[in-house]
Amino acid sequence: MSNEYADIGLIGLAVMGQNLVLNMADHGYKVAVFNRTTEKTREFLRHCRDHEPSVDRVLGYEELEEFVAHIKRPRKIVLLVKAGTGTDAALNSLLPFLEPGDIVVDGGNAHWMDTRRREREFTDKGFEFIGSGVSGGETGARFGPSLMPGGSAKAWSSLEPIWRAIAAKVDPVTGQPLEGAEPGKPVEGGFSCTAHIGPDGAGHYVKMVHNGIEYIDMQLISEAYWLMKKLLGLKSEQIGEQFDAWNKGDLGSYLIQITGEILQQQDPESDSYLVDKILDAAGQKGTGLWTASSALELGVPANAIAEAVFARALSSLKEERVFASSCLSGPAIEVQTGIEEWGEAIRTALYCSKICAYAQGFQLMKEAQKVYGWQLDFGTIASIWRGGCIIRASFLNRITQAYQEVPALGNLMLAPYFRQILAEGQTAWRKVIALAVVNGLPVPAFSSALAYYDGYRSADLPANLIQAQRDYFGAHTYERTDQPRGRFFHLEWTAEQRVQRVEG
Amino acid sequence: MSNEYADIGLIGLAVMGQNLVLNMADHGYKVAVFNRTTEKTREFLRHCRDHEPSVDRVLGYEELEEFVAHIKRPRKIVLLVKAGTGTDAALNSLLPFLEPGDIVVDGGNAHWMDTRRREREFTDKGFEFIGSGVSGGETGARFGPSLMPGGSAKAWSSLEPIWRAIAAKVDPVTGQPLEGAEPGKPVEGGFSCTAHIGPDGAGHYVKMVHNGIEYIDMQLISEAYWLMKKLLGLKSEQIGEQFDAWNKGDLGSYLIQITGEILQQQDPESDSYLVDKILDAAGQKGTGLWTASSALELGVPANAIAEAVFARALSSLKEERVFASSCLSGPAIEVQTGIEEWGEAIRTALYCSKICAYAQGFQLMKEAQKVYGWQLDFGTIASIWRGGCIIRASFLNRITQAYQEVPALGNLMLAPYFRQILAEGQTAWRKVIALAVVNGLPVPAFSSALAYYDGYRSADLPANLIQAQRDYFGAHTYERTDQPRGRFFHLEWTAEQRVQRVEG
Repeated sequence: MSNEYADIGLIGLAVMGQNLVLNMADHGYKVAVFNRTTEKTREFLRHCRDHEPSVDRVLGYEELEEFVAHIKRPRKIVLLVKAGTGTDAALNSLLPFLEPGDIVVDGGNAHWMDTRRREREFTDKGFEFIGSGVSGGETGARFGPSLMPGGSAKAWSSLEPIWRAIAAKVDPVTGQPLEGAEPGKPVEGGFSCTAHIGPDGAGHYVKMVHNGIEYIDMQLISEAYWLMKKLLGLKSEQIGEQFDAWNKGDLGSYLIQITGEILQQQDPESDSYLVDKILDAAGQKGTGLWTASSALELGVPANAIAEAVFARALSSLKEERVFASSCLSGPAIEVQTGIEEWGEAIRTALYCSKICAYAQGFQLMKEAQKVYGWQLDFGTIASIWRGGCIIRASFLNRITQAYQEVPALGNLMLAPYFRQILAEGQTAWRKVIALAVVNGLPVPAFSSALAYYDGYRSADLPANLIQAQRDYFGAHTYERTDQPRGRFFHLEWTAEQRVQRVEG
Repeated sequence: MSNEYADIGLIGLAVMGQNLVLNMADHGYKVAVFNRTTEKTREFLRHCRDHEPSVDRVLGYEELEEFVAHIKRPRKIVLLVKAGTGTDAALNSLLPFLEPGDIVVDGGNAHWMDTRRREREFTDKGFEFIGSGVSGGETGARFGPSLMPGGSAKAWSSLEPIWRAIAAKVDPVTGQPLEGAEPGKPVEGGFSCTAHIGPDGAGHYVKMVHNGIEYIDMQLISEAYWLMKKLLGLKSEQIGEQFDAWNKGDLGSYLIQITGEILQQQDPESDSYLVDKILDAAGQKGTGLWTASSALELGVPANAIAEAVFARALSSLKEERVFASSCLSGPAIEVQTGIEEWGEAIRTALYCSKICAYAQGFQLMKEAQKVYGWQLDFGTIASIWRGGCIIRASFLNRITQAYQEVPALGNLMLAPYFRQILAEGQTAWRKVIALAVVNGLPVPAFSSALAYYDGYRSADLPANLIQAQRDYFGAHTYERTDQPRGRFFHLEWTAEQRVQRVEG
């Protein structure tokens, strides 16, 4: 092992960790690496020797103490280990070797409340702690992820040069990803997709919302796919071509692009398209349901995001569904003519729904910052999602602009551009949902997004009846439309209640 | 104060506590009472002296030690205090005075995980702990609530006679509430709406799901009300008459009944119907969101229940909605003719949606029992919801029968009776939603229930695409339809991924 000093250390050499190391090395940083299972470290070093031009900048260690000792002070140590107990175990084993001012960066998908706790514990001990969202999957980690760090400003200023160097780069004006992102040839210049999100758990919270949005993005795409398949009778490849076309317009995004590719992918094992052979039981890893749960707790309507999580849960009940399909009746699906017109209507429904879903995500962050004492900059958050991450999209440049123009925007749907899209698109959006509903095709994401739109633009909702019911059975009181807010009234609704009041 | 010994004690003399005391006294039990604020105890004793024939059976104490000392051993002490920290504080102050075998019953709306913790702590100390759901609001507590106790069988056998005596009574066959429930004249005979739900937190969990179902029940009713008002142009009183009529049929239930009354209630302050003057901003107290969060965590699709919670959150954004109503455009509402036909269609939509919502609640309990180690009896749970509680309904007799006939029923929607209602009702249900969607009226509960129905009866869903996307960007793998479950596959989707594999 070497006597050199590394610029930064990284613990956890699964694929994400390995790729982040190589990304940092590509940008000229010397990276010390450590993995609990030593063999993994050796394997990775062999791989670097054989395949990576940056091999000289990767320094492997088999003892944690030695690993820590070979990092420049104040040390920056990135953790990419299994979130939860894995992180706590790694932190505990690391603690004895740290010195005041050292900075630990948790790059896993930690729950923001865990990050808040860890940040406090580390700060109390004189160390620094950054919880950083890392989005973009394996490819993002390797060639430029979107990075969402939360922690003290001091710790961030130390980490910033490296984080800026390795993050995805986009054109600062158009938001389009810059070319040249390949091994050993890092992009120079451009807007770097990272920024200091806020203190303690802010980075991980924003990353979580990113993932919640990713869930609904994927669910919306899958509903559009399903309608084209079932209602328009299109083949996988034809639907893929639709997505290719959509990718050139307002919907242009990584997820639409890969959907186009996926749908045209042949199965290596058969004559079919691969997607037709993939089992329709979706997995999930937690951040989607955290987002929906947080929305429930904070009282923020994010129904579309929750529907996306529930849709995955329902999909996983494959055996139950197959059984139920022979018992529960539905209408025969009427395959539609007018493919071009309906295709455009489905695209419009997807785009309108997407706007509402993103609005929910941003409203959620807006409420969370109040509760957790952060000051989030939504224009900046949207801007660093333009590259590197899974939801990167030209759409995010529109969101960036909307918040830059009006930082205190009440709701994304109210920004002039989005308002207009919704106004023009709503008729088609409604038609698509009505058609799906009548034909027995489930569109929970499209429907819930529309219900959000229609509910949000309703000066009046039937919650007056709910308040009356609550007052009737539980004396929960109500406010009146002809009285100032904050004055609460109660009626003794029944003769029995009136008697009780007189006697009591 | 007296030297008598009480059969049971109760701490917490807010309205629910007072009413439960009077209910127990009506049934011949001597009840010791205590309240942290002494004045409340004195007030209650004055009220009893002046108005309650059972006054001799209510024994008030101003010192906790004295209160405890005057209860027969093993003591049964019911807590009706503010859930959360209030409960922990009351329990801690009580602990020094308890003796082995004493039973503490938490009748508040505790989170089931708190109840699990408290039950363990109490059992470790040699005491018994019961967490009991108490549903039915103030009137239920006074004249017969639905009681859902969880705890050890031994503790339950001690509490059982009192709980059976004070619970609501229904006809064991028809499930209809039995008459005679008024002060001092307790119902004798009949089916008592309580049963041992299971150990530790089982009772509070089931009570929570009851409340989650209550949320969606109320939301569904409010959507039906809104459609009759906005789409059919009916006045409050006319809609109330519709609910009166519905209350005589399959939908017959407490909530439908009070809705009929509410909608015909004149405003004491003006010439309008009161409901038209009540502000449409709904409150919530936690159990609804706990239910939805638990569903998210356990991976159980309960989207309709979650939509009901989010609908309340959206309603509370009154000022935002009023502002948005002038910015976000929607279609003009076309008031429909054919009121009778559409009224019946709306009733059908409500009933079908209700079946799906209840199915979600029962599926949630089914999954929870696996995770928490309970063995719930769904027929019994449905049977004790037939009387006393807010969701009591003739419908619950149908659910009781369905689970009695097939205890291992895969899903409530599959029971012959419900299957048929859904099969016959679905066309109208779909038409109602399509009409609402096209007219810009939000129906998140109707829509989400239908999406659940259509999703559950779909042998295939578009989650195959979601799995492909997850494998593309995160190498999460997928299963294949032509391979056994549990075998996972991964494709290197792009040339770049293939290169990495060859090199790696």
